[in-house]
Amino acid sequence: MNVRNQGRVRHYRTVSFDAARNEVLLIEQRLLPHAFEIVRTTGYRETASAIRDMVVRGAGAIGATAAYGLAQGVREFGKGGRRRFQAQVEAVYQTLKDARPTAVDPVNAMNQVREAMRAGDTVEEQQALALAAAEEFAHQDVSHCAEIGRHGAKLIRNGMKVLTHCNAGWLAFVDIGSATAPIYAAQEQGRKFHVFCDETRPRSQGATLTAWELAQQGVSHQIIADNAAGHLMQRGKIDLVIVGSDRTLGRTGEVANKIGTYTKAVLAHRHHIPFYVAIPLSTIDWSLKSGFDIPIEERHESEVLGAWGVVEAKGTSGKRVYVRVANPGSAGLNPGFDVTPAELITGIITPAGIFKPSELWAKRRQLGLED
Amino acid sequence: MNVRNQGRVRHYRTVSFDAARNEVLLIEQRLLPHAFEIVRTTGYRETASAIRDMVVRGAGAIGATAAYGLAQGVREFGKGGRRRFQAQVEAVYQTLKDARPTAVDPVNAMNQVREAMRAGDTVEEQQALALAAAEEFAHQDVSHCAEIGRHGAKLIRNGMKVLTHCNAGWLAFVDIGSATAPIYAAQEQGRKFHVFCDETRPRSQGATLTAWELAQQGVSHQIIADNAAGHLMQRGKIDLVIVGSDRTLGRTGEVANKIGTYTKAVLAHRHHIPFYVAIPLSTIDWSLKSGFDIPIEERHESEVLGAWGVVEAKGTSGKRVYVRVANPGSAGLNPGFDVTPAELITGIITPAGIFKPSELWAKRRQLGLED
Repeated sequence: MNVRNQGRVRHYRTVSFDAARNEVLLIEQRLLPHAFEIVRTTGYRETASAIRDMVVRGAGAIGATAAYGLAQGVREFGKGGRRRFQAQVEAVYQTLKDARPTAVDPVNAMNQVREAMRAGDTVEEQQALALAAAEEFAHQDVSHCAEIGRHGAKLIRNGMKVLTHCNAGWLAFVDIGSATAPIYAAQEQGRKFHVFCDETRPRSQGATLTAWELAQQGVSHQIIADNAAGHLMQRGKIDLVIVGSDRTLGRTGEVANKIGTYTKAVLAHRHHIPFYVAIPLSTIDWSLKSGFDIPIEERHESEVLGAWGVVEAKGTSGKRVYVRVANPGSAGLNPGFDVTPAELITGIITPAGIFKPSELWAKRRQLGLED
Repeated sequence: MNVRNQGRVRHYRTVSFDAARNEVLLIEQRLLPHAFEIVRTTGYRETASAIRDMVVRGAGAIGATAAYGLAQGVREFGKGGRRRFQAQVEAVYQTLKDARPTAVDPVNAMNQVREAMRAGDTVEEQQALALAAAEEFAHQDVSHCAEIGRHGAKLIRNGMKVLTHCNAGWLAFVDIGSATAPIYAAQEQGRKFHVFCDETRPRSQGATLTAWELAQQGVSHQIIADNAAGHLMQRGKIDLVIVGSDRTLGRTGEVANKIGTYTKAVLAHRHHIPFYVAIPLSTIDWSLKSGFDIPIEERHESEVLGAWGVVEAKGTSGKRVYVRVANPGSAGLNPGFDVTPAELITGIITPAGIFKPSELWAKRRQLGLED
């Protein structure tokens, strides 16, 4: 997507690869929205650190980073036979996997790379195949998001006001994003509309990342408190809701996503406002039978007891600092995700088209479930 | 209510009066929850400044402050005839009224004081009557809150989990509060329960003021993001919701309150969780015919684009600072209040008892509407 800097607009991917220098290029997300910087990792260990330290976050983005990191690591191999090379492949794989042990995306992405390498005989062939497979993974991520955008853009008509929650955007993928894909596609088609970004407490990804993305793309938008969406819906000021999903149950159509998504779905349902969830196929979970079986991560209370921001007074550093907002004697409770039942969801926007949540299981072959 | 300080517990009112020194005593609310301080205003002009600068806020609290301020001002009168005294009364009245020109509570409170003064002949008599009327206003505020507590406490049973939104607490009144009154009364009766405080973005009154109050009173509580209540309700972790109200329509039972209240009411309704609104009778508006006629204050976007808190790092001042959280290029939209329809409200807790919202008009005489 685009980044505006002193009047110029340049295109960037969240994750890319410099094959000549064997470096992974990442948008440094911890500095956003207050500063934009591209970091280069000069070796796979640095790439693993970037995943672990959340320089990069989001399903598609960390998948592609791990895929590139694996290619980078196998291309770092110096001299030695195939057995030593194989040991290097395993070491790189394990290091990258350990960077975010609970995430499935890096593992799935690296498995694709490792699978592709099997077709090579020599070390050099396997190195070339690894790089090609990583590039293919990133390309697939972009093209899946573009397909989500193509299908979803039809939902956004001129004059509409669209609500988003959290950041399932460009920065969470290699490019374009899932929930933001229909927005960017509709804009490219010349449609005029307005986006309300839920602040998305406690981590404020809507106010920081999504708002930053929309500003870069020149999309008309305003940030609202999470408390405000209900009022705006009641006054007829929201026409459509689009969110992303961390996990969608293929058997039930239930959607796990950032805390607060369920609340927005309940409100939209009351006001007969269409509520869509945009997802890549990789986030469909075909095994779980109930949303109550989805583990809800309980995150650290400090997130809800304070906020990260920049002191704007003169003589201050411009760096983000943590401020304690809440009463110092009080504790917090901080569930990170919630589950929205299928009955509240108008449709699931996928690269293969838009489906009712209840249709997913019947369409499972079209949606990529192999027997 | 109580304030805990190094193991000792002392009782404070939000607003009180030192007749010997002719000073109004106020809890300095702008320092909370990070510091507790009582300020004394040595003249009515200082009292007006304290109202204007929000040392004190909340319907009952600013009403009582204005009443005391008027008594203070008329007691400041030196020598002179009744005509000069009358001019002083008017000057004090106008100064205090202008401190918060859109608020009705100071005006209503001062009108009571001025009315009472009519019974006096001499300046001295009128000064004494003014003080007595101000004390009576404060006393009434406390006793109305106590009655709300007496009626509302019946709703809180052992083991319950109660959700609150914003601060309609002790700090918004002379003592006890409205939404918090049932909580404090139930606790005094020895019941064991737990309170979830909605953070209440963008101004975070739940995380700061309500949480501070509950901590002082020793009530078990946790702060949650506004986004989390829906999830907790879905998982059966909330049994009762109690909120306050800035304005309740006597004809329709609609309730205007802090932004986000409507969202919580919609969620509670979906989950069949009782949703109560606690109000003093003075907040009932008997004239408006529709909630859509209630003007919704649009507040400054800076509130939603950032947060006030304390930097906890060593070498920092411990004072609250404003940090910009949101993307610097993005604007915000910040409605301050919303309107909850009667159908979502289980009951209105008043000093005169608990009523269904649809009953208010029929019971208008019992609820203080004079013909």
